[in-house]
Amino acid sequence: MASSKCTRLTEALSRPLLDSVDSVLFDCDGVLWRGDQAIPGASEVINSLKKSGKQVFFVTNNSSKTRQMYADKLGKLGFDASKDEVFGTGYCSAMYLKNVCKLDGKVYLIGSNAMRQELEYVGIQPVGVGPDPISGVQKDWANIPLDNEVRAVLVGFDEHFSYMKLNRALQYLCNPDCQFVGTNMDATLPLEGGKTIPGTGCILRSVETAAQRQAQVVGKPSNFIFECVASQFGLNPERCLMVGDRLDTDIMLGSNCGLKTLLALTGVSTVAEAEANQKSECPQRQKMVPDYYIESVADILPALQA
Amino acid sequence: MASSKCTRLTEALSRPLLDSVDSVLFDCDGVLWRGDQAIPGASEVINSLKKSGKQVFFVTNNSSKTRQMYADKLGKLGFDASKDEVFGTGYCSAMYLKNVCKLDGKVYLIGSNAMRQELEYVGIQPVGVGPDPISGVQKDWANIPLDNEVRAVLVGFDEHFSYMKLNRALQYLCNPDCQFVGTNMDATLPLEGGKTIPGTGCILRSVETAAQRQAQVVGKPSNFIFECVASQFGLNPERCLMVGDRLDTDIMLGSNCGLKTLLALTGVSTVAEAEANQKSECPQRQKMVPDYYIESVADILPALQA
Repeated sequence: MASSKCTRLTEALSRPLLDSVDSVLFDCDGVLWRGDQAIPGASEVINSLKKSGKQVFFVTNNSSKTRQMYADKLGKLGFDASKDEVFGTGYCSAMYLKNVCKLDGKVYLIGSNAMRQELEYVGIQPVGVGPDPISGVQKDWANIPLDNEVRAVLVGFDEHFSYMKLNRALQYLCNPDCQFVGTNMDATLPLEGGKTIPGTGCILRSVETAAQRQAQVVGKPSNFIFECVASQFGLNPERCLMVGDRLDTDIMLGSNCGLKTLLALTGVSTVAEAEANQKSECPQRQKMVPDYYIESVADILPALQA
Repeated sequence: MASSKCTRLTEALSRPLLDSVDSVLFDCDGVLWRGDQAIPGASEVINSLKKSGKQVFFVTNNSSKTRQMYADKLGKLGFDASKDEVFGTGYCSAMYLKNVCKLDGKVYLIGSNAMRQELEYVGIQPVGVGPDPISGVQKDWANIPLDNEVRAVLVGFDEHFSYMKLNRALQYLCNPDCQFVGTNMDATLPLEGGKTIPGTGCILRSVETAAQRQAQVVGKPSNFIFECVASQFGLNPERCLMVGDRLDTDIMLGSNCGLKTLLALTGVSTVAEAEANQKSECPQRQKMVPDYYIESVADILPALQA
């Protein structure tokens, strides 16, 4: 079984693979675009898949945009996409707090305005967005005024993350009844030109260390983000293909949820890393072996046009 | 052997223990004081030990004060102490960068003005102290101007810690030749009244996650902080007693370095935790079992005055 995985997706293999699925879930960054540059040919693939009757979804760990902002970016780059097809961790975290946690109260949010909007959209009131400058001394920090209606701490990407926000999260999380949710664990965000900036994982680890608690993570590879799509669109996992550039998030998600998996080599992970996982004896690493890999999603196009 | 450890230090046991050592190393917070309140009787113990000819050292993971600031605080609270007897992680990190790393260049410092002073005192020029407000967009953060003389990143306690500082540390640490040092891994700082605030460990974990590298940690339980004292004063580890309130830092340091160990119950750790470690089969946890425990350091006083 293992030996048939991690196969290069040729044109001849593409057709039966596409015939075997009804829905294709795409990671965005590193698969459809890098920064603000679309991967050449990616939009034609998405648009052809939809014309051929496949359902397409955009599944991203990025929490810094609302679904609408994502749909707008997709449209601008030539992708045929609607807001309802976008599952970002801002939106999915709001759904998680509402539907799984059944939250009755406010959220202390380490995150962006986009996350605030997604929470408000489902009727949850966030507090804490924006800068939180330091003042006073240690004793003041430990006794900082808290909002007594807060029932959860949600951590996503926040460029205003600071010691004071870390401290505020700790003071809320000292209450064991306060729920603790994170959008995703990505350590870095890759940008064009091989540079990276710190990702939400750095912020979340910091809060976890302070609170000595583990957050419930909503994004890939957590099953919840797939369940969020599957429950809204009635998906059968066996008839789904997950396409991504990261073994530890995209491919792991596919393995966790029983989806077919395809690694695109336009982003973070390499075939060598996938093969090393395949050779290892570790069950966790076996989950980070894709069924197929491909240089770029654009390489599916001939199979779609034939 | 293990069964003779974790013994209550009675007055009868105190005398032979004190006779068996020449030097006593004290943790400060949770042992000699809590916040700005001295533990009653602690200063009499220190002053009597010194009168009886013992060497006394103050060994703290706190990086937010210089040796002089510590000596001043000790003096104000009634302890007979000089700057040279104080080993804080600000000072020890400076010694580490100078003597172990043989640093030839500047340091990007996530830390306090006190740390800056300790570095300058040994001839190392730090950059980065103080607030570092966010501006621009992701691409600007990845291409932030760096000081090309920086050869190390040092992380200590910094109330101005922010996303921008995390990003700047990552950009320096992308260079594998850039050294990476942390003062200590304490997750929280306990204050009076049972409250806590985030400690340096939260900041350091965040930077480690971003850089996907592990820092060399200078503070307890790293051997370096003891070696720093031992090399300056010619200490024989077997003739030293480490007194602390934390199993994971103070007692672990003593075990790592072959010192006798005494847990004072005026701070973080409990006898129950020490006993649970003693019962475990885990070699790491066995290092977190003290030779002796005592309610408060003040309880040594009768043995000293007899």
